[in-house]
Amino acid sequence: MSQPNEFNPSQRQPLLIVISGPSGVGKDSVVDALRAMTAYFHFVVTTTTRPPRPGEINGKDYTFVSKDQFAEMIEKDELLEYAVVYNDFKGIPKQQVRYAFDTGKDVILRIDVQGAEKIRQICPEALLIFLTVESEEELERRLTLRKNNQTEDLKLRIATARKELQRIESFDYLVVNKESQLEKTVGTILAIIEAEHHHLPHRKASL
Amino acid sequence: MSQPNEFNPSQRQPLLIVISGPSGVGKDSVVDALRAMTAYFHFVVTTTTRPPRPGEINGKDYTFVSKDQFAEMIEKDELLEYAVVYNDFKGIPKQQVRYAFDTGKDVILRIDVQGAEKIRQICPEALLIFLTVESEEELERRLTLRKNNQTEDLKLRIATARKELQRIESFDYLVVNKESQLEKTVGTILAIIEAEHHHLPHRKASL
Repeated sequence: MSQPNEFNPSQRQPLLIVISGPSGVGKDSVVDALRAMTAYFHFVVTTTTRPPRPGEINGKDYTFVSKDQFAEMIEKDELLEYAVVYNDFKGIPKQQVRYAFDTGKDVILRIDVQGAEKIRQICPEALLIFLTVESEEELERRLTLRKNNQTEDLKLRIATARKELQRIESFDYLVVNKESQLEKTVGTILAIIEAEHHHLPHRKASL
Repeated sequence: MSQPNEFNPSQRQPLLIVISGPSGVGKDSVVDALRAMTAYFHFVVTTTTRPPRPGEINGKDYTFVSKDQFAEMIEKDELLEYAVVYNDFKGIPKQQVRYAFDTGKDVILRIDVQGAEKIRQICPEALLIFLTVESEEELERRLTLRKNNQTEDLKLRIATARKELQRIESFDYLVVNKESQLEKTVGTILAIIEAEHHHLPHRKASL
């Protein structure tokens, strides 16, 4: 670690990096790939009332709780933010974020678009990345591949995605997560994070 | 190239990337390394009245002209900007920049700090990168390695560098070009350029 001095005024501050975007664009795959590639980040684990998808691990991918347990967390004011997403609740435990910043690492938070907008309000200096796909057909294809998805659910998710794409003005960066190009997507996100560490603070957008 | 559409609103616009910083921080080495690594960029060639350093090629590193020729370029308004730097003139021919943008590539312009500030005024959307070194001792060491440098010239350059470091507020990014870490510096600059292509324009700093 270099000492800040007259000729080297840089300082590395941990970032809060929010990876968001409509359902089906690949947030989970991107976060998993980031987790697999480096130990530089701390990942905030979201609490949800939805049932685990095949292969998902409690406490790593999500913390899976009952609706009663979730209601208790709301009552005790233990959540930084929460939302109803397709009849299930998802929320960010405050405890998780506190712990994350204590690690001194950059913190990565995967969250849906409405959640990301709330994080922007709570933490204006957060780095918000909007993931999207190359086309509606591709989004439909990906959502269809998910098991348990009913036809009406699919239509709802596509309609929601279309609405959410109009809300990119809250975000800092836009990344198209193209089919079979996960590595490229992750490379772009790593480039954005590296760049952000060199961004002079006075040049950042005012909110 | 992907077609912009509702689900993929991204568009790749060529960037004007300015690599600047005090004398001795390694602007030339960084630009040479970028040139050697990729064909993605177009490099603007600066015109100067200073004599070539060993190994410098006319028309690639700089266009070397006499003071009379330079005076003629000023009179004919052929320069985007020019400045006196340590008793020599340096300037950016308008023709060079016009040609650069016609290539459709990202354009890289190496320029001293006062020149970069003028570019910011002329082209507010330019991406300004300030290169620095890790310490004053390191800057002194690098400047001493240059042949033809007199002792008083060295002192002048260090004093100027100190002044210039106070002017980073015109710049977007700060990159410390550490000794023997040219590859890392270039990697950071490439990350900044990639990130900038994904930056949502409404989130950029207003000027």
